[in-house]
Amino acid sequence: MGVLIWLLVGSGLSKMRGFQKLTFTYEALQTWFEALQVKRCREQAIPLTEAFDRVLSEDVVAAEDLPRFNRSAVDGYAVRADDTTGASQSKPLLFRLPEKDELADTAHREAKLVWTGNPIPKGSNAVVMLENTKKVDAKIEVWSQTAPFDNVSRQGEDLKKGDVAVAAGTRLKPFHVALLSALGTSEVKVVEKPKIAILATGNELAKVGEERGEKQIWESNRILITGMCCELDAEPLDLGTAKDNVDEIVEAINLGLKIADVVVTTGGTSVGGLDLVPDAVAKAGKPGIVVHGVAMRPGMPTALAMLEGKPVMVLSGNPVAAITGFEVFGRPLICKLLGLKKEEQRPWVKASMTKKIATALGRKNFVRVRVIRKIDELLAEPVSAKGSGNLSTMTRANGYVIVPENREGLAEGETVIVHLFSEVETVKP
Amino acid sequence: MGVLIWLLVGSGLSKMRGFQKLTFTYEALQTWFEALQVKRCREQAIPLTEAFDRVLSEDVVAAEDLPRFNRSAVDGYAVRADDTTGASQSKPLLFRLPEKDELADTAHREAKLVWTGNPIPKGSNAVVMLENTKKVDAKIEVWSQTAPFDNVSRQGEDLKKGDVAVAAGTRLKPFHVALLSALGTSEVKVVEKPKIAILATGNELAKVGEERGEKQIWESNRILITGMCCELDAEPLDLGTAKDNVDEIVEAINLGLKIADVVVTTGGTSVGGLDLVPDAVAKAGKPGIVVHGVAMRPGMPTALAMLEGKPVMVLSGNPVAAITGFEVFGRPLICKLLGLKKEEQRPWVKASMTKKIATALGRKNFVRVRVIRKIDELLAEPVSAKGSGNLSTMTRANGYVIVPENREGLAEGETVIVHLFSEVETVKP
Repeated sequence: MGVLIWLLVGSGLSKMRGFQKLTFTYEALQTWFEALQVKRCREQAIPLTEAFDRVLSEDVVAAEDLPRFNRSAVDGYAVRADDTTGASQSKPLLFRLPEKDELADTAHREAKLVWTGNPIPKGSNAVVMLENTKKVDAKIEVWSQTAPFDNVSRQGEDLKKGDVAVAAGTRLKPFHVALLSALGTSEVKVVEKPKIAILATGNELAKVGEERGEKQIWESNRILITGMCCELDAEPLDLGTAKDNVDEIVEAINLGLKIADVVVTTGGTSVGGLDLVPDAVAKAGKPGIVVHGVAMRPGMPTALAMLEGKPVMVLSGNPVAAITGFEVFGRPLICKLLGLKKEEQRPWVKASMTKKIATALGRKNFVRVRVIRKIDELLAEPVSAKGSGNLSTMTRANGYVIVPENREGLAEGETVIVHLFSEVETVKP
Repeated sequence: MGVLIWLLVGSGLSKMRGFQKLTFTYEALQTWFEALQVKRCREQAIPLTEAFDRVLSEDVVAAEDLPRFNRSAVDGYAVRADDTTGASQSKPLLFRLPEKDELADTAHREAKLVWTGNPIPKGSNAVVMLENTKKVDAKIEVWSQTAPFDNVSRQGEDLKKGDVAVAAGTRLKPFHVALLSALGTSEVKVVEKPKIAILATGNELAKVGEERGEKQIWESNRILITGMCCELDAEPLDLGTAKDNVDEIVEAINLGLKIADVVVTTGGTSVGGLDLVPDAVAKAGKPGIVVHGVAMRPGMPTALAMLEGKPVMVLSGNPVAAITGFEVFGRPLICKLLGLKKEEQRPWVKASMTKKIATALGRKNFVRVRVIRKIDELLAEPVSAKGSGNLSTMTRANGYVIVPENREGLAEGETVIVHLFSEVETVKP
């Protein structure tokens, strides 16, 4: 249920255009996802060598034990463990070396040389490390007692045949890929990268490298959203820019729907007193806009839509608001399309606010901070509230704090959770 | 200075092959770096659209103010702030709209319609939000008082011309790239990706997809190190596998030195009682091995070398030891080659050990743990000490704890720092 909070949101006394009603973020996401019935993207088979950061679409089951035989974990002599009982430096025990038939079972008081990784000879059940032996003529002195399976990597101790080695919905990191390789996997089934078509709208936008009018600015939102898609290993597609013109925007969105799984637009959420892109989305098809106006800051004019069964995300033209909108709605959407077991979170730390800040009641506020480590303490310094749309606040910050709707700010010294987008810096005291 | 610690390290009574002396990790790194005099890789110019995750090789300075003119931050009317003194809902003030000459300076009690992003007309110094105005015939009622620069994004408030927008040595994330785009940047100079040639050695290795002998195992270290290089945005090059044969290894290393900036080998650090790869490195040139045997666990047989002025890293064939060696020596090396301002760290959290564990005194121990969040507490569960070479311990763990050389383990309930390689899981209580 939407909640009418314009009384809380300040002026709200006259026009609020398309969004008289601001929807809470969690509710907006839920409404959108319910409309969309988001399904995981198709799967594809790819060589394991190209699988880094891809998401597995089906469990990979171990086709054999790993290790597939008992292996020596050290260089040494394979023996029957019982034969070593009582051995010590002061009381070494003598072992025979095999004479002819190396393949015969290890006999009583017999020692067979093995190197790290070698299969344990039949009949042996432990390995005495080379360091604890001494060759004396044709015999071996054993200086230490061993227990069964000492220095043996046992068959199946890493994985048993039939075990799930890596589960569906796992993002494949180097260790997963290596484990799959150790199982002899050369090809894996992964989820196709969701294709995200990105359109920037606005008469004021000039493309970098082209002509720029006197009242124009260099366009930066396409590359911004492109980068945020790449971070999640989605595949960005460039729809270019569109003027503040409903027909031009409709055309670009329709192209996006043809070539991609998701369409993301920036700008035109409140242009010249109009909701230009939302209007275009409404014109492009049904059901169109599902949510318009979210109780968050920045990012209030964000709209969420569905066209031809596909998600459409209408972000603000303000780059910081676009980032917030993408973070709150784009990230969980892409994680769902990728079939990840759960939404991937940015790493976070707890830190102490260095000063108090005020935020708007009734909205979820995303406060940019710079976290530094001073001795053993983590401090979160708010990055200038002034100029909240400025991209440099994002490059100066290394994370954000979410102030919930029922709070009017954060106190100095308050412990907060900071979601990090870059590393914490250590500052000398 | 090396430290003779074999008395601490257990048996140590007989042969320890090439490394009678184990070097502390920090000292090993320092010795190696001093020998290498590591320099940043060459720089190259690339399109901004391809710059994600690359490292900037020179400062990018703002060529103009950002914004480059005073812009309206809202839809509304540009006015002289002073003219609004005393305006309120109960006492609105009337403003004229400009008649013909829109380009003339804003006059006393004149209001000019502006949309978000529009330049502020000359003569105006504030914008009244549309919501706080009302059109009455040909005039505008203003309902609220504004201060100078209210609702104005001031020229240069994001960046001033000449400011360093993004500094050399910065890894370019989406926000940096977007900021550079907003400044009109179409090309950037970045550090070339260090090329890392990777060789796996061992008679026991079979390449996935090829024939496998009865005593052979599927090779997995090349893809492992490949993935760890990619995580740092270095460029892995495949040298394939080599048998346990000095000449074959020398040949592969020499090829690596020709095509790459760094050579990494796995295996052959203690084969059949010999230091096969270290011997090959010694044969390949001068100065060869700089450190052999490091006081760490796993990863003790790691060797660090220099050939033709290039770093050579000789890692254990045990995959977990290879990971640890690469983490401790490869990561800082690549960060230096990339010219990063400082070594990139994995994110870390503080967590409480769920049980005590024992570690070897005199070595830096890398203990794999699985961190879970239970209510508000982070718990670090050690991942089976048994089978320490097993890759599945890395996929079951999500981080590691470093136990320093002067400790013999960790206590139950002890607070430890966990370096995370994947996300912390929340467990329902």
